[in-house]
Amino acid sequence: MPVVVRRIDRSSQPMAAEFAEFGVATVHEAQGRKGLLDHRLRPVYRPVSVAGTAVTCEVAPGDNWMLHVAVEQCREGDVLVVTPTSPCTDGYFGDLLATSLRARGVVGLVIDAGVRDIATLTEMQFPVWSTAVCAQGTVKETVANVNTTISCAGQRVAPGDLIVADDDGVVRVRRDEAVKVLDSARARVANEEEKRKLFEAGELGLDIYGMRDRLAEKGLRWVESED
Amino acid sequence: MPVVVRRIDRSSQPMAAEFAEFGVATVHEAQGRKGLLDHRLRPVYRPVSVAGTAVTCEVAPGDNWMLHVAVEQCREGDVLVVTPTSPCTDGYFGDLLATSLRARGVVGLVIDAGVRDIATLTEMQFPVWSTAVCAQGTVKETVANVNTTISCAGQRVAPGDLIVADDDGVVRVRRDEAVKVLDSARARVANEEEKRKLFEAGELGLDIYGMRDRLAEKGLRWVESED
Amino acid sequence: MPVVVRRIDRSSQPMAAEFAEFGVATVHEAQGRKGLLDHRLRPVYRPVSVAGTAVTCEVAPGDNWMLHVAVEQCREGDVLVVTPTSPCTDGYFGDLLATSLRARGVVGLVIDAGVRDIATLTEMQFPVWSTAVCAQGTVKETVANVNTTISCAGQRVAPGDLIVADDDGVVRVRRDEAVKVLDSARARVANEEEKRKLFEAGELGLDIYGMRDRLAEKGLRWVESED
Amino acid sequence: MPVVVRRIDRSSQPMAAEFAEFGVATVHEAQGRKGLLDHRLRPVYRPVSVAGTAVTCEVAPGDNWMLHVAVEQCREGDVLVVTPTSPCTDGYFGDLLATSLRARGVVGLVIDAGVRDIATLTEMQFPVWSTAVCAQGTVKETVANVNTTISCAGQRVAPGDLIVADDDGVVRVRRDEAVKVLDSARARVANEEEKRKLFEAGELGLDIYGMRDRLAEKGLRWVESED
Amino acid sequence: MPVVVRRIDRSSQPMAAEFAEFGVATVHEAQGRKGLLDHRLRPVYRPVSVAGTAVTCEVAPGDNWMLHVAVEQCREGDVLVVTPTSPCTDGYFGDLLATSLRARGVVGLVIDAGVRDIATLTEMQFPVWSTAVCAQGTVKETVANVNTTISCAGQRVAPGDLIVADDDGVVRVRRDEAVKVLDSARARVANEEEKRKLFEAGELGLDIYGMRDRLAEKGLRWVESED
Amino acid sequence: MPVVVRRIDRSSQPMAAEFAEFGVATVHEAQGRKGLLDHRLRPVYRPVSVAGTAVTCEVAPGDNWMLHVAVEQCREGDVLVVTPTSPCTDGYFGDLLATSLRARGVVGLVIDAGVRDIATLTEMQFPVWSTAVCAQGTVKETVANVNTTISCAGQRVAPGDLIVADDDGVVRVRRDEAVKVLDSARARVANEEEKRKLFEAGELGLDIYGMRDRLAEKGLRWVESED
Repeated sequence: MPVVVRRIDRSSQPMAAEFAEFGVATVHEAQGRKGLLDHRLRPVYRPVSVAGTAVTCEVAPGDNWMLHVAVEQCREGDVLVVTPTSPCTDGYFGDLLATSLRARGVVGLVIDAGVRDIATLTEMQFPVWSTAVCAQGTVKETVANVNTTISCAGQRVAPGDLIVADDDGVVRVRRDEAVKVLDSARARVANEEEKRKLFEAGELGLDIYGMRDRLAEKGLRWVESED
Repeated sequence: MPVVVRRIDRSSQPMAAEFAEFGVATVHEAQGRKGLLDHRLRPVYRPVSVAGTAVTCEVAPGDNWMLHVAVEQCREGDVLVVTPTSPCTDGYFGDLLATSLRARGVVGLVIDAGVRDIATLTEMQFPVWSTAVCAQGTVKETVANVNTTISCAGQRVAPGDLIVADDDGVVRVRRDEAVKVLDSARARVANEEEKRKLFEAGELGLDIYGMRDRLAEKGLRWVESED
Repeated sequence: MPVVVRRIDRSSQPMAAEFAEFGVATVHEAQGRKGLLDHRLRPVYRPVSVAGTAVTCEVAPGDNWMLHVAVEQCREGDVLVVTPTSPCTDGYFGDLLATSLRARGVVGLVIDAGVRDIATLTEMQFPVWSTAVCAQGTVKETVANVNTTISCAGQRVAPGDLIVADDDGVVRVRRDEAVKVLDSARARVANEEEKRKLFEAGELGLDIYGMRDRLAEKGLRWVESED
Repeated sequence: MPVVVRRIDRSSQPMAAEFAEFGVATVHEAQGRKGLLDHRLRPVYRPVSVAGTAVTCEVAPGDNWMLHVAVEQCREGDVLVVTPTSPCTDGYFGDLLATSLRARGVVGLVIDAGVRDIATLTEMQFPVWSTAVCAQGTVKETVANVNTTISCAGQRVAPGDLIVADDDGVVRVRRDEAVKVLDSARARVANEEEKRKLFEAGELGLDIYGMRDRLAEKGLRWVESED
Repeated sequence: MPVVVRRIDRSSQPMAAEFAEFGVATVHEAQGRKGLLDHRLRPVYRPVSVAGTAVTCEVAPGDNWMLHVAVEQCREGDVLVVTPTSPCTDGYFGDLLATSLRARGVVGLVIDAGVRDIATLTEMQFPVWSTAVCAQGTVKETVANVNTTISCAGQRVAPGDLIVADDDGVVRVRRDEAVKVLDSARARVANEEEKRKLFEAGELGLDIYGMRDRLAEKGLRWVESED
Repeated sequence: MPVVVRRIDRSSQPMAAEFAEFGVATVHEAQGRKGLLDHRLRPVYRPVSVAGTAVTCEVAPGDNWMLHVAVEQCREGDVLVVTPTSPCTDGYFGDLLATSLRARGVVGLVIDAGVRDIATLTEMQFPVWSTAVCAQGTVKETVANVNTTISCAGQRVAPGDLIVADDDGVVRVRRDEAVKVLDSARARVANEEEKRKLFEAGELGLDIYGMRDRLAEKGLRWVESED
């Protein structure tokens, strides 16, 4: 039977601001190119960038009842992560639920389904990543789990995991790996800053990364004309 | 043989402004969650919001000839609704046709196919909902119906029906139901305003809508931890 | 074995500015409705408009190594055109590579795959057309061709061809046809200006293009009501 | 509120056998190339061919309750036509419901959603056209209409319409047009038989249909080589 | 760094034969409608039905190297479950690898990517479920994990889990739930047998399941005609 | 203006039989993993395998006129390769055109669009690879090129190129490379026969191809358990 888990272990929220600044691509690389949710998740407006702790929610297709249940489990700094139990593009979420989430301090919504009222969501600047924009209404008939480990857009998300989301998409960082990933992201950003200066100065990746020998070993040849 | 129907019964246009203000999600709910066109129809620019009376037009795949025929049947306050007789993403419509429609007072275009010149359409602020943006040109060889009842993006649209379209998509209101739907939308909006205030004040949907008992009846349990 | 071709014959770059002004839809029509890349290629930000000479690059799925090789072959006024050897939506390209291309005077990127760092690309106003936005990282293991004739998003692109890209998509003009297409585009634009004035004045395409007789010949009938 | 309409006017069933023999492509042409349901509907096994009178059924996404309601409205010679109120690929239908439909003399199912138990459906040779094969189970919570006019896979289907379905897909014939379409289909088949003999004898469509002059008028030229 | 895990705890294989007989839809229901892999996974030939213990394998896009590594970890009664680290439809698997798997007693392959040599796979009757059929060759350059917990077609699969696959698709049963699910499936099948007899005898689901009162409570009305 | 090229240089047809026997995957590998048409092209029935010389044909969307023109250019041993000038899934081809092609000795059809009458095509055993099965009829209004170099499903196809097609899809071999590819395919098949025997005997690819050292160099580690 479906359950609502009340007590979850959240990643440290002070880290979230720094994760948000790094952005999705950097965090994804920093944790070894894993944890990226499917790119069908797109932000409702751009630019946008948030990070927060996951509260998870399953919903039946065409049924947004559990969103109301999930709101109660959210608190300051959370990101609500929603997955339908089978694929559905209906408009599960609109401006009233956004108002409710904002009132609780929730910093964003990630939903592998549709949302609506996007003009108002944009005005409110409430960050939402969804698979579709669709005004189709939903019912309230079927119960499902809140705050259990779910699969959302191809990734396992546990309650309390860190969610980082921006114009590039959404990535999940496991709670027990967050500190390590943060360190790795810091190092990566520092390194990228150096590289950026070299690129701006006109240096080539071929030289910066010393790729020429390995390319030749793999058989690449430079020729003057095609045949 | 294809026909162009010259005389159609239009929904009252004074209603259109109010419908546009309510928006697609509200109108869709107000008429019992029906009439929504498929969410593959997206606006060319945002924010945008219109409502008007449908002039309908069929086009052969890759052939935009009938758009020119349909323009003549349009008048102040109409929305031109176009469906290909089989799926096609070609660019049927661009800035010249938009100029022509605007000269006749048409307030928007809904087309289950492609459009082009979208930079100019955006500059002109001529509202367009389409399935694709595609520069592919079309021919003028095949005739088809104008102002007959069509199926567009999964919905039946009769000439004279009301079309409401905004950032969320496109919904159709049947001419003979428009007055009733308008009343229902007004009531819904008033009710939503009240709810919004409660949500802003931090109340939960669970309490506002009195959902807790029914959730428990359906077997939902609140637990402290997952296992 | 894969090759990097160093010497390519570029289309005359002075023409590019004029092509960019005409835009994709006009150029596509001016060359007889051919050369349009698939509309799955969309710009990362809008409005945007460029034209330049193609440097071509193949990449293995999930492997962006050859982009670094291609950068070295680019010069002022080029557009880098990238195609994966089999379909892939990974994020091959981000802000560092954009910085590198800009440093060499490259005016845009066309890639039938994913890109990332789009907030920065937008800030930099570096023009990119891609099939997906996706943060998924790539490896550097497999070599492939640079500056050979490729197939990209359904079109053959040879190094040195002209690439015109804007909000509507991307079109290719063959190097040996560029002068002729430019003339044809100029004539087309002049003609469209005249037409636009007639449309603005409320004239109908039916009359401007003299379509009524041919429509009747094809059997189209105007009637007062449907049945 | 949803209704189940008990009394519908069915097309004459003796016609159905002849329609089934003609097949979808012929019937679609005979009624002027209209009424074809979207080709995403595919048969579960092949070859298969049926025709019958439509009983219509709406279902909520992920909810197959109304199928049980619809079964009671079916009788000998019917085809059950099912559409979800928003897109869904769940497995609404399996071998038990097929057994129930067969017991009532129903000759096939058309559903713009998923089905399951297809090994058994194939063994039973119960004809099914669906949008997906998917084992995902459904709930029984939400009521919807039975035997009202629906939109299914892009076409309006009224209860009592004729449904013809085979390896090529599914086409609907309006009840009040069935006699006329049957005549037209007979004529078409007779004509095709003649044409087939000519084609078998090696004659060309160019000559059989006298196309050469019109092709030349449109500007087609035959040349010896491409340049 | 990628690892190959040599020792995994396999579900008891004697259960597999019984699971295979129950089939995917029954097992999916018996475990509470969870564990179903996305329906884009389709069998290469039909009818087909297997069950076995999962050996898991990640592969880079366009790179099938790890399949060879995974083969060594397989033994009698296993099903090899393969997921690309980002979406790819290349042909990772053909008749030689099937020969190798068969030699080790592997009973099937599940791969969220493409396969080739399907004529031979069909002749051999080696069971394969894939997302695509595609002859595109792959490289051998990038290492990845074998026998770690993966996400495949939307589901978490741990090494040693039970995989049941047939004409309807693929479902995963967790190792620690297999015994319970088996019991539940047995009960379900017994119950279905009874129901099937009632349906064959012409009884209605409405009566068998006693649905009429609840339908009326939800507001469903039976009427003689639509208006 | 569109042309029909009458004289094309065909690949030697005696080679075709041998190519057909090798099949698509082998030929694709033998020519360096190029020339594969997109896997959306699927055969109408299986098993099927042909090879022949390409006659090429462009068609307007929803318009099959040029197929009749192309038939006249076909002769014994040809494969007709058809591409729409923009994407279209209509049913361009059915049993009458198949009868006409067979009467001229054509061995198959490859079309990046829809076909119909597939029950009859299957009975006739006329080989067809298409993107869709769809009964939607087409018009005869627009002329296009026959026997020019086209782009079909992502590949350039020149008239006279060799087309090899089977259950796995469709590959093109350039006329001037056919002899070399044939030799390479023969060598590949001989080599595969040897490998197959080793695999049947239970040897591993890891050993047959000597992969262990290179895997270790890339950092792959074998461990007893995951953490």
